[in-house]
Amino acid sequence: MAAEKLKTLLITGFDPFGGEAVNPSWEAVARLPDRIGGWRVEKRQIPTQFGLAAETVLAVAAECMPDVILCVGQAGGRSSVTPEVVAINLREAAIADNAGQQPQNEPVVAGARVAYFATVPVREMVAAIKARGIPAALSYSAGAFVCNDTLYQLLHHYHDTPTRVGFIHVPFLPEQAKNGQPSLVLETITEALAAAIEAL
Amino acid sequence: MAAEKLKTLLITGFDPFGGEAVNPSWEAVARLPDRIGGWRVEKRQIPTQFGLAAETVLAVAAECMPDVILCVGQAGGRSSVTPEVVAINLREAAIADNAGQQPQNEPVVAGARVAYFATVPVREMVAAIKARGIPAALSYSAGAFVCNDTLYQLLHHYHDTPTRVGFIHVPFLPEQAKNGQPSLVLETITEALAAAIEAL
Amino acid sequence: MAAEKLKTLLITGFDPFGGEAVNPSWEAVARLPDRIGGWRVEKRQIPTQFGLAAETVLAVAAECMPDVILCVGQAGGRSSVTPEVVAINLREAAIADNAGQQPQNEPVVAGARVAYFATVPVREMVAAIKARGIPAALSYSAGAFVCNDTLYQLLHHYHDTPTRVGFIHVPFLPEQAKNGQPSLVLETITEALAAAIEAL
Amino acid sequence: MAAEKLKTLLITGFDPFGGEAVNPSWEAVARLPDRIGGWRVEKRQIPTQFGLAAETVLAVAAECMPDVILCVGQAGGRSSVTPEVVAINLREAAIADNAGQQPQNEPVVAGARVAYFATVPVREMVAAIKARGIPAALSYSAGAFVCNDTLYQLLHHYHDTPTRVGFIHVPFLPEQAKNGQPSLVLETITEALAAAIEAL
Repeated sequence: MAAEKLKTLLITGFDPFGGEAVNPSWEAVARLPDRIGGWRVEKRQIPTQFGLAAETVLAVAAECMPDVILCVGQAGGRSSVTPEVVAINLREAAIADNAGQQPQNEPVVAGARVAYFATVPVREMVAAIKARGIPAALSYSAGAFVCNDTLYQLLHHYHDTPTRVGFIHVPFLPEQAKNGQPSLVLETITEALAAAIEAL
Repeated sequence: MAAEKLKTLLITGFDPFGGEAVNPSWEAVARLPDRIGGWRVEKRQIPTQFGLAAETVLAVAAECMPDVILCVGQAGGRSSVTPEVVAINLREAAIADNAGQQPQNEPVVAGARVAYFATVPVREMVAAIKARGIPAALSYSAGAFVCNDTLYQLLHHYHDTPTRVGFIHVPFLPEQAKNGQPSLVLETITEALAAAIEAL
Repeated sequence: MAAEKLKTLLITGFDPFGGEAVNPSWEAVARLPDRIGGWRVEKRQIPTQFGLAAETVLAVAAECMPDVILCVGQAGGRSSVTPEVVAINLREAAIADNAGQQPQNEPVVAGARVAYFATVPVREMVAAIKARGIPAALSYSAGAFVCNDTLYQLLHHYHDTPTRVGFIHVPFLPEQAKNGQPSLVLETITEALAAAIEAL
Repeated sequence: MAAEKLKTLLITGFDPFGGEAVNPSWEAVARLPDRIGGWRVEKRQIPTQFGLAAETVLAVAAECMPDVILCVGQAGGRSSVTPEVVAINLREAAIADNAGQQPQNEPVVAGARVAYFATVPVREMVAAIKARGIPAALSYSAGAFVCNDTLYQLLHHYHDTPTRVGFIHVPFLPEQAKNGQPSLVLETITEALAAAIEAL
């Protein structure tokens, strides 16, 4: 009897930025098991830097040949786990990235299309997270900082290929939240990611 | 060798109000174990009604003779678990309670003092909850609805007695949060209450 | 000496929706003067309905031949006046529009491109509003309700023509804001729109 | 025909604190006219320092003999103009004041009562501000920083005297608001204070 063939998921979290000591995206990704359902889970931390973040993902993907790439990022101030619907061809940074870059009104890829829709089942992911009793919602904007930059570049690169690409923004951890900002505990964020993966 | 004598905690949660289908305060209280550390835990649901809520607590307390009374209530829109520092002698309701009462600018107890401080160790409770990685903060206002009403009446009743009284407000559950309101999952709220109890 | 030729701006506000009694977008548009700087200002109220909103704008534009079309809409919960950067080809409604339509995951225009960038100078508009001491910020998402629908259709229609198209979301009025939601007074919103027009 | 006798209002705003470049409370107070209705308006800036703030008010009041003292302070994050209902006998600072003091769990006045209600007509003030179309709401907590400290000390000092004392918290100015925090423009805050004064 043949064993079921596992599919490969490459899931990434970012390093801390903007003066924060931790990044909940990587903290949660790092705690995921190596196998979830029919998925072999490859986990990597990537740098919060325009350009280099996507290049790092692409280099790892060239080795592990994932069926799906799911990047996870921190969205301080959001109260829910939010799969992103779309990435836009715009770099516009309110703060510097971890390499000191702060582009204003530049394209991610000059001459390329205005936007790409994510190619993972974002609505099913939201439903799966909510089914665990965890707050989740679609997001129609990944911003114009490194998160959007990474998602745009990956969708551009894998356009018209079988490789599917998505992005999930997660809230602050409690220790990051100031002045009544919302947060979720680490176990909840980690469980939300696992639920999203099962919905792929 | 004599067994350690358990102390008694009476902890209450409210029934749903304001059009909500659930009240996270009672959902979490109901899931607490019957014993936490050196505490025997008596759990009761009380009605979201001015006056009757406190009367219900006092009737139960007359039977189970608690060392500490801890009421738990829903504070929709808050992002943290918040022990209350103080109760004020004021009833002022933005919505009707579950008996249709909506008092405006009335005292809780006519002629009584302006306010009482809670008599549980609120700062230690905040620290204990945060030590579990759960968002917590002191609150300097329990509002002027049924929650404040109950806390005020209990502090008034047990003033200059050994019985200590406190109140913890908890955020919405994810299914209650609308339009980006913060929430915490039920397991997190329940664990926060357990941590607070251990800090008593 | 020849008189300076006025250019024509068509500016629209929506009718109330979602149970609200007013829509700040139309209240503010209606209070604009008929001439601002070098602009003749044509003001119209349009219905909060998928499809019909854009059709109404297009019908008026066919008559008044505007150089610029600026739609204004209500974004309850936002604290700033927010020119929109982009419209996406997606209809996804959390509530019904004023015709009872509540599309889920449908394209605005089947087979058309994923997104269009607004063709008005959004960054200059933000700067002009802030220069008046009024809170303003770029927005990277017009949502997926009627506002985005209208902006997308207009940008699609006027693509590769000289007619420029933009959209500005405005906060609630004070009488609409509940539970601590942000708002701006009507005079402030109206002044913000005038500032944005001068920046065109 | 005898001239109507003017009553005296002493109204104060604080200096900037917490890293802010301005304090909207003083900016608005400074722009008030010297006479509003039947009130002669004495305006002073006071320091954001525990103790010294109230002492400064008391020293000025000893000279100008006001009928009413109204202190105005900044409440970053609030969306409305909020007259305070009550002051509590507690100092607990999340940040240092302008003298570097950061008391934790100390009384404002040792041995004094838990709280005082403000002695100005807070509900009429809210109604008067809202009647101008400006967002206003009662607040049941002035916090435990310098604002509460000042209000408590003044209410304690003038207890059982004819001098009435109140406090109004105002939102950030637009240039102070970060990450979507609510704000009000300076003219709106100033007009709100004038409306509140007319309601005295």
